[in-house]
Amino acid sequence: MSVEAEQAAVEIPSLFDSRWVELPDHSKVVDPRTLPKGFRAGGVAAGIKPSGNTDFGIIVSDVEATTSAARFTVSSAPAAPVQVCRTRVDLAAIRAVVVNSGNANAATGPFGRDNAFYMQGAAAMACGAPENRVAVASTGVIGVQLDSRAIAKGASTVVRELKPDNALGFAQAIMTTDLWPKMATLKVELPSGEVTLSAQAKGAGMIAPLHGGKPQPHATLLAFIETDAAITAELADDLLGGAVAGSFDRVTVDAQLSTNDSVFLIANGASGVEVASNSEDAETFASALDALLTGLAISLVRDGEGADRIGRVTVTGGDSATCERTARAIADSPLVKTALNGGDPNWGRIMQSVGMALATGGPEQIDITIEGVEVASNGIANRFDVDALNEAVSGREVEYDVKIPGEGASSIVYFSDLGHDYVTLNAEYTT
Amino acid sequence: MSVEAEQAAVEIPSLFDSRWVELPDHSKVVDPRTLPKGFRAGGVAAGIKPSGNTDFGIIVSDVEATTSAARFTVSSAPAAPVQVCRTRVDLAAIRAVVVNSGNANAATGPFGRDNAFYMQGAAAMACGAPENRVAVASTGVIGVQLDSRAIAKGASTVVRELKPDNALGFAQAIMTTDLWPKMATLKVELPSGEVTLSAQAKGAGMIAPLHGGKPQPHATLLAFIETDAAITAELADDLLGGAVAGSFDRVTVDAQLSTNDSVFLIANGASGVEVASNSEDAETFASALDALLTGLAISLVRDGEGADRIGRVTVTGGDSATCERTARAIADSPLVKTALNGGDPNWGRIMQSVGMALATGGPEQIDITIEGVEVASNGIANRFDVDALNEAVSGREVEYDVKIPGEGASSIVYFSDLGHDYVTLNAEYTT
Repeated sequence: MSVEAEQAAVEIPSLFDSRWVELPDHSKVVDPRTLPKGFRAGGVAAGIKPSGNTDFGIIVSDVEATTSAARFTVSSAPAAPVQVCRTRVDLAAIRAVVVNSGNANAATGPFGRDNAFYMQGAAAMACGAPENRVAVASTGVIGVQLDSRAIAKGASTVVRELKPDNALGFAQAIMTTDLWPKMATLKVELPSGEVTLSAQAKGAGMIAPLHGGKPQPHATLLAFIETDAAITAELADDLLGGAVAGSFDRVTVDAQLSTNDSVFLIANGASGVEVASNSEDAETFASALDALLTGLAISLVRDGEGADRIGRVTVTGGDSATCERTARAIADSPLVKTALNGGDPNWGRIMQSVGMALATGGPEQIDITIEGVEVASNGIANRFDVDALNEAVSGREVEYDVKIPGEGASSIVYFSDLGHDYVTLNAEYTT
Repeated sequence: MSVEAEQAAVEIPSLFDSRWVELPDHSKVVDPRTLPKGFRAGGVAAGIKPSGNTDFGIIVSDVEATTSAARFTVSSAPAAPVQVCRTRVDLAAIRAVVVNSGNANAATGPFGRDNAFYMQGAAAMACGAPENRVAVASTGVIGVQLDSRAIAKGASTVVRELKPDNALGFAQAIMTTDLWPKMATLKVELPSGEVTLSAQAKGAGMIAPLHGGKPQPHATLLAFIETDAAITAELADDLLGGAVAGSFDRVTVDAQLSTNDSVFLIANGASGVEVASNSEDAETFASALDALLTGLAISLVRDGEGADRIGRVTVTGGDSATCERTARAIADSPLVKTALNGGDPNWGRIMQSVGMALATGGPEQIDITIEGVEVASNGIANRFDVDALNEAVSGREVEYDVKIPGEGASSIVYFSDLGHDYVTLNAEYTT
């Protein structure tokens, strides 16, 4: 089978098959392999992954006037590419991103930064963009130096793979323990005309974004978002910040913030449709971007390492910080996650995590609802149909609603379960 | 085999076989079945556990002048027995504790509190102590009402089992997923004379004490400590607080604070040896108590659900709160815990958790040492003998030392690994 035929045969799951994400009416899903106008992408095997799978990719906008926005991990041990992006890239005007998988280039010191510079320079030459407009990202094992010969090989061979319809080649090259490529392309009907919006992401393990404001921007996972709408860098930053806060910021696989999390939004204006600040265009574009990133975020959780079943917990109460802490406590509890894996409603473990998160000495009034069944009210067990609830939690998505004291605030977190495959992947392999 | 012969055949692992705990010279280990003078204990099967195993126990001091101290969970969903201890027990003068396993009596509301009162009253009658001097504790499944007939059966049948040499019967009755009884008895040579100090505890899952000062006392697990030294209630409280802070407060199995954690220290003076505040006696007694509780705490981690291998992490840096947060981040990381299970040094995952805990955006200077090998310095990977390190982390205890910026503060946490048995226990059974 030719490479083209192989690529055509790859199944790319929809990002919009969850009951928790809805595609707005003005947007429609098209072939995820196709990028917005003026973009090219591709990936090759540069020899970084021992498996020989593709591990080196570039995405590039061929338009000079391209604008961008980015978010990075708040980790105190940021990988070399993150450091290089922060210090040597014009983050408002990124035209290309070069990415490798199989090696995080983290905890690698000055030599690691040199390798990230080298990646940046080689990619700049390969795609004809200035160095300071080429961002760098890496994912894989921590504490091992990248082989600069692999970088050279990747940069020189990826050039001929860079094509407008090769988003899949790029998405595959950034995968590590992911089981499937996470990507979509949308046609979005704005009041001023049609634009295209696409995204590719990778996740699987070490997934739990941390919040961060503008001065210390945060990001999560590796995600790349492209559009042919014309958007100022300032608006791109606003749109990306809002969309990340409602999507990637809301997921956890294993409560572990990565050293490499990076998200990029690149807008090249090739559609000729301009999205102005505070316009109906901006509002419509934002709703499409929000849906796209929420779909990606849920897909990341669904493909969390070893994940079988996913949950969504909504905590409502008196203040945001307490709701957030409580929702995270539930979503990150190994007792709740193993129960989710086992298809066991076990709401007692939810009560226990809420008690831990509030830590007032109590007792506090806590209500717990699972799949619409209020199993506990005011901290006390209710009578309910156990068989019906057992059946309800055996599906692929389980919904938890928790009410803590107070009103007016809420927090939502999407999370994966904890099963044998997570342990197998992480105890038996160095990832 | 008679009950006595069966009990004599039970293997009770030593609490002092870890390199991380040392028994002071003035203390010696004696038969853990034997209680200090003036105490009796025992356990029976009251029919609470479906398995038919023992599930109901009492420990009692027969001395009127008995003093005590206690610590409880800071959970906002405290179990009924914890609520009853706080409101209806003279915590400075506890003479008896009645305990059941197989049911946590948590999230059970007013009816659950009635059952805890009933346990208290039945135990008071059974052992001849006033009701307000009988404390109550429970452990097991959350959200199910206790059967009051089982309580009646337990209280009426346990009476004839209460014996000075039956600490094992009591320790077995409080076990849930524990694989072995955790207990020890020490003879302690104080300057003023010899006293006896014993303790029984249960742990396994839902183990991660939270700190709490005096106004909101905290506790962990179920632990019962008895001595025939004469100690004022005030000194008992000081001694218990200090010992808990250095032992139970320092362990985590699954980062989950329980709804039922309770620790009791009961002193009856039957030895005739008085331990005065600020005396050499108090200092010597405190060092024995510290060693005993540290031994128990490490034993709880070693018998953490599914645990194979245990770790100790010491974080040193500029302030206590940051050291504590960093040590907990490492000890509670499923990535670090699965690597420990797999006998994989994988220090990159430690760097990642430290980066997450500090969350400054970095890069920060972080040193990581595993079993004496400095694997990373100033955030950068070192060269080291990989085979030697692999060998070193394959033992039953692994030592991690982490240096973060600053000096003068440190935090130690003991933790269990994460293996398939934890998932099996918690995904396949309602515990």
